[in-house]
Amino acid sequence: MLENTGRTELSSLGEFGLIKHLTQFIEIKNESTTKGIGDDAAVIDYKGKKMVVSTDMLVEGVHFDLAYVPLKHLGFKAVSVNVSDIYAMNAIPRQITVSIAMSNRFSVEAMEEFYAGMMLACHKHKVDIVGGDTTTNKSGLVISITAIGEADEDELVYRDGAKEGDLLCVTGDLGAAYVGLQLLEREKQIFMESPGVQPDLEGNDYILERQLKPEARKDIPVLLKKLEVKPTSMIDVSDGLASEILHLCTQSTTGCNLYEEKIPIDPSTYNMAREFNLDPTVCALSGGEDYELLFTIDQSDFPKIKANPDITVIGHMTASKDGVNLITKGGTSHPLTAQGWDSLLKKD
Amino acid sequence: MLENTGRTELSSLGEFGLIKHLTQFIEIKNESTTKGIGDDAAVIDYKGKKMVVSTDMLVEGVHFDLAYVPLKHLGFKAVSVNVSDIYAMNAIPRQITVSIAMSNRFSVEAMEEFYAGMMLACHKHKVDIVGGDTTTNKSGLVISITAIGEADEDELVYRDGAKEGDLLCVTGDLGAAYVGLQLLEREKQIFMESPGVQPDLEGNDYILERQLKPEARKDIPVLLKKLEVKPTSMIDVSDGLASEILHLCTQSTTGCNLYEEKIPIDPSTYNMAREFNLDPTVCALSGGEDYELLFTIDQSDFPKIKANPDITVIGHMTASKDGVNLITKGGTSHPLTAQGWDSLLKKD
Repeated sequence: MLENTGRTELSSLGEFGLIKHLTQFIEIKNESTTKGIGDDAAVIDYKGKKMVVSTDMLVEGVHFDLAYVPLKHLGFKAVSVNVSDIYAMNAIPRQITVSIAMSNRFSVEAMEEFYAGMMLACHKHKVDIVGGDTTTNKSGLVISITAIGEADEDELVYRDGAKEGDLLCVTGDLGAAYVGLQLLEREKQIFMESPGVQPDLEGNDYILERQLKPEARKDIPVLLKKLEVKPTSMIDVSDGLASEILHLCTQSTTGCNLYEEKIPIDPSTYNMAREFNLDPTVCALSGGEDYELLFTIDQSDFPKIKANPDITVIGHMTASKDGVNLITKGGTSHPLTAQGWDSLLKKD
Repeated sequence: MLENTGRTELSSLGEFGLIKHLTQFIEIKNESTTKGIGDDAAVIDYKGKKMVVSTDMLVEGVHFDLAYVPLKHLGFKAVSVNVSDIYAMNAIPRQITVSIAMSNRFSVEAMEEFYAGMMLACHKHKVDIVGGDTTTNKSGLVISITAIGEADEDELVYRDGAKEGDLLCVTGDLGAAYVGLQLLEREKQIFMESPGVQPDLEGNDYILERQLKPEARKDIPVLLKKLEVKPTSMIDVSDGLASEILHLCTQSTTGCNLYEEKIPIDPSTYNMAREFNLDPTVCALSGGEDYELLFTIDQSDFPKIKANPDITVIGHMTASKDGVNLITKGGTSHPLTAQGWDSLLKKD
């Protein structure tokens, strides 16, 4: 993939040349972007609105493995995971800055692929790339993205507003990204042992897309507004359902009962988890990288969301003293932990 | 330094524990910081003002060498270089986000040192740390900081406003940071060859401080306002005077005559450069990391700045067709290049 159009060394362009080359097709989409790339700083105008800022770092060998993640997908994902945090505030992303440290094993064409993926995601989310920094690294690729968004003050949703009795809701389905990663890891192992063998990824489009090309839930803040529902708290599912529930409960000073049977898991996730001898529930609880939105609503809002196929009620908030519990399909209650993976397995 | 209070492994705290530990003493200083660390995103309120955003990445082995840069100084510098970009817009920095990727060779105490340095700079510049990401890295330390500032629209200064006849000015003096680096490199070499020998850094406080603990020019936007001078263009000196002049000329579509004899160089920089057989002018032109401000003003503003010891007029802008030239002390004219180091040496 990296060599199909010839290889241009990064050093042939120099830092400023590379930035100019990669950013030449960036077009400003937002009125609030007064000045984008090309000065000491970008200039942004949010008259009267609140701005929200979030940042995420992705490290090669820790967050991604270029053995099976195409750079275009990585670029797309890097933007998606950042704007996901903005949606989790019930806000609209508008601008990002991008810093990249890379070794000279990457070519200009490789960086073009990465930028193409980023720009695809930016186009999808109508986000402007307004600045960044490009530098060398001794080994590996490190990507740091900061996303900036806007919201009216009364629309913002924090993590700390959940209260006893609120319903716990999640969008889409969970666990697929983690199972997709297991599949990619397995095929990488097979490939490393027998380089001639083609990876067997057929029929697994959904779980692979969920891992390689996650879609941040741009539609949810819009949907909630249409349904006239303002969540009492919200967070995106990046580390796994268990960890995110614990964040909401800690910051809101509540407990929670989560019902295993309610957790939405796609049939393809379920089947592939079983193939790997994994408990699908554990994949949802601790797998992470789903980039769905987890939120709480007042019980009185239940009629507004109950018919929506994109939203599932998976539990309810309780008093803090009652703790954070998973009610299993068998009806027993287990305390939920952020290290849910090991501890849950041990309880089975 | 890293072990003087015992060593706590990063893994003993976990990601969330480490963030909580390091950020526990952060206090919000700006009214515009509605919500800082602890949610999916920070919330910032800039009623009617323009916000400016800048980002920089520092990579171990590329931008710093922990063999001679104490982590506290590194933290201070990481913040300083970022807010410097905000001052270069004639704006006031208000918030930063901080992302760090580090290997487990760093202890919690080491990260505390780094944070202490960052917080010292934040205190100095009255900047709030409002978010970030902390992750592991396979090797080395990577720091990515995004700075956010504010300004009234009519106060912002871009790189592209210089015009023929404008005076080129620079704050402070140049070249010291580069000469300081040469000194640190030399002492490191000596130490590596003879570990018992103590580094000989005495009497070189100024050039060492300029390298290790650069001060972003917080005072200059205030001073310019007081003097009632609005620069026509401005940039900070991070890559070296030559490179920054070329940026201003390219973006403003002007040429420039820079006078070698006018370039402000501290005597201690001059003497140490000579000790290293370096041309002090070349250190100023291509050394970089001075974090002074380089700007152009209309000729009619000259009386307002001429008595100020912090500002030196070093040249004037010309027509684009006349090129960007260094007029040497001997009176000859050389085209200035961003790769000034080698090319200038060859011309001597």
